[in-house]
Amino acid sequence: MLDEFDLIALLRERLEAAGVNAGSRVVVGSGDDAAVTDPGGATATSVDAIVDGVHFRRSTYPPEAIGHKALAVALSDLAAMGAEPGEAYVQLGLPADLEEAELLGIADGLGAVAATHGVVVAGGDVVGSPVLFVALTVVGHAPDADSLVTRAGAEPGDALLLTGPVGGAAAGLALLEGGELAFGVEPGIAEALRERQFRPRALLDAGLALARAGARAMIDVSDGLGADAAHLARASGVRIELELSEASVDIGVAAVAKAADEDPLEFAVSGGEDYELLAAVPQERLDEALEAVLRTACDPALVGRVADGEGVVLRGPTGREVSAGGFDQVRSRARGGPT
Amino acid sequence: MLDEFDLIALLRERLEAAGVNAGSRVVVGSGDDAAVTDPGGATATSVDAIVDGVHFRRSTYPPEAIGHKALAVALSDLAAMGAEPGEAYVQLGLPADLEEAELLGIADGLGAVAATHGVVVAGGDVVGSPVLFVALTVVGHAPDADSLVTRAGAEPGDALLLTGPVGGAAAGLALLEGGELAFGVEPGIAEALRERQFRPRALLDAGLALARAGARAMIDVSDGLGADAAHLARASGVRIELELSEASVDIGVAAVAKAADEDPLEFAVSGGEDYELLAAVPQERLDEALEAVLRTACDPALVGRVADGEGVVLRGPTGREVSAGGFDQVRSRARGGPT
Repeated sequence: MLDEFDLIALLRERLEAAGVNAGSRVVVGSGDDAAVTDPGGATATSVDAIVDGVHFRRSTYPPEAIGHKALAVALSDLAAMGAEPGEAYVQLGLPADLEEAELLGIADGLGAVAATHGVVVAGGDVVGSPVLFVALTVVGHAPDADSLVTRAGAEPGDALLLTGPVGGAAAGLALLEGGELAFGVEPGIAEALRERQFRPRALLDAGLALARAGARAMIDVSDGLGADAAHLARASGVRIELELSEASVDIGVAAVAKAADEDPLEFAVSGGEDYELLAAVPQERLDEALEAVLRTACDPALVGRVADGEGVVLRGPTGREVSAGGFDQVRSRARGGPT
Repeated sequence: MLDEFDLIALLRERLEAAGVNAGSRVVVGSGDDAAVTDPGGATATSVDAIVDGVHFRRSTYPPEAIGHKALAVALSDLAAMGAEPGEAYVQLGLPADLEEAELLGIADGLGAVAATHGVVVAGGDVVGSPVLFVALTVVGHAPDADSLVTRAGAEPGDALLLTGPVGGAAAGLALLEGGELAFGVEPGIAEALRERQFRPRALLDAGLALARAGARAMIDVSDGLGADAAHLARASGVRIELELSEASVDIGVAAVAKAADEDPLEFAVSGGEDYELLAAVPQERLDEALEAVLRTACDPALVGRVADGEGVVLRGPTGREVSAGGFDQVRSRARGGPT
């Protein structure tokens, strides 16, 4: 195995080949004690780690998807703030049995996502570890702090906009973990669902568009639509009413749910990892927000409203109400992870 | 085991009790998709991860020392930039068998270091992991990028200032890994050496003082005096001549080296993890720099000079020369880690 310094040089080379590391805010990049940047405004910073056996499995994930997912998931938090993506810092925990090709695949995945969004990998750290992990820190920018959208500003009367379909990432995971389920699903569709799990999109353009179109509160759907709506309701001190019949569900989720003998709504509401954005938008700016999101290659839907009170009410297709409790349990089961 | 959200609430409470999380640059702290800050100048950002079995052992490390070390080691990189410490972001990978008391100990160690340096823990992430890891991201500040000191500015003729003694952390590790060595060492001294390993100091005041006193290049001694001098020489395009007889060595290192049948110079030059600062200072500002460092409760020494050329020359007490090669091998052996 290469030593730490060789590894870092190799990773840097690979990232430069992907066309990243040429950002304007970075004064001193990777290779010194710290990276130096000149933000010139407010910053949004988020951290996110993925660990083998918990958030992915080396046995089922292509290496490039591990790198892709780690960075995309972290950037999704910046999307939910309406921030412009800036820098990423990558910490890799590498087990001794990791092959060089696997490492380069991870670097390529990171590099591809960074290049897509103009993100500079400004620093990082490589350490030995009994288990593979990828821990990301991402920094986004805005002219001032008021331009960023937290979870806390939703007001009664606001509409709830969801940027796209949900359920696909959880169905993709179910296919990965239970290969036999795929017998009930058309191969092209099964592949698309696995892609939802392997290579989530960070909706940075949509987040920026929503922030500019007046979104008052925003969150990305990582824990599941129900749980994330509850986070937003709690932070804003409001009640959220979700109409599940208005949310679109990824193609194939119903087929996977049937094969797994599960309720497709569970995938949609509790599966998580969709990384669509849920935003509270004032009624008077709703048309503007919908149009702005449509221009970013998303397929938005209005999925409910903000009301006085607290908690989340979910109305299913048949009008049945489900309370906000129990999402976490369902989520853990759907994910199969020890978190 | 508590779920992710309970854990985060518990950690936040613990950090607030330690008196942190009240920083002026943080507009939105922990609990949203990202932390929002208003840097108002240049930033220095560094990441550092420590992993059980590689950088520490749960079996020999008090939990509080794990938290202490993780943050101090990360902040040391900011010290080496001459940055004012600002925010920290903590990513914890927690194995299922981690007891709540252990977790709280880690949080207390993080909180104590943060409180000492006025660092705000502005965000974090808790994930399940087969192995305990603590991955830190730290952000420091300066009025502008030119106020920060990289590894790259040393010039021929500069003096080399080292802020304090070296070798102690490696001797402390040797005592932890080979308990029988302690028979040859006075108990109070053995304890002090273990402390060097458990609870390194981040020399933020000394780093800031050196930056203001005109240091042209700086690095913290994490890999070992020889290896880190080589990093500085390479980044600056100069040759570094170290006089080992001028560097002070921690009390007890000689006794541990004797008990371990090793050369005490190996601990001092190749052991690493001392987190003292090595700075290149122009001759005309040397008195000012020495005085400024003395005022920060450090014990500085002049350990050599910068010359034309490349690489590192080490002169031992008997005048023998050692070339810069081979440090990494020695270091790996001294550390006993798989990195």
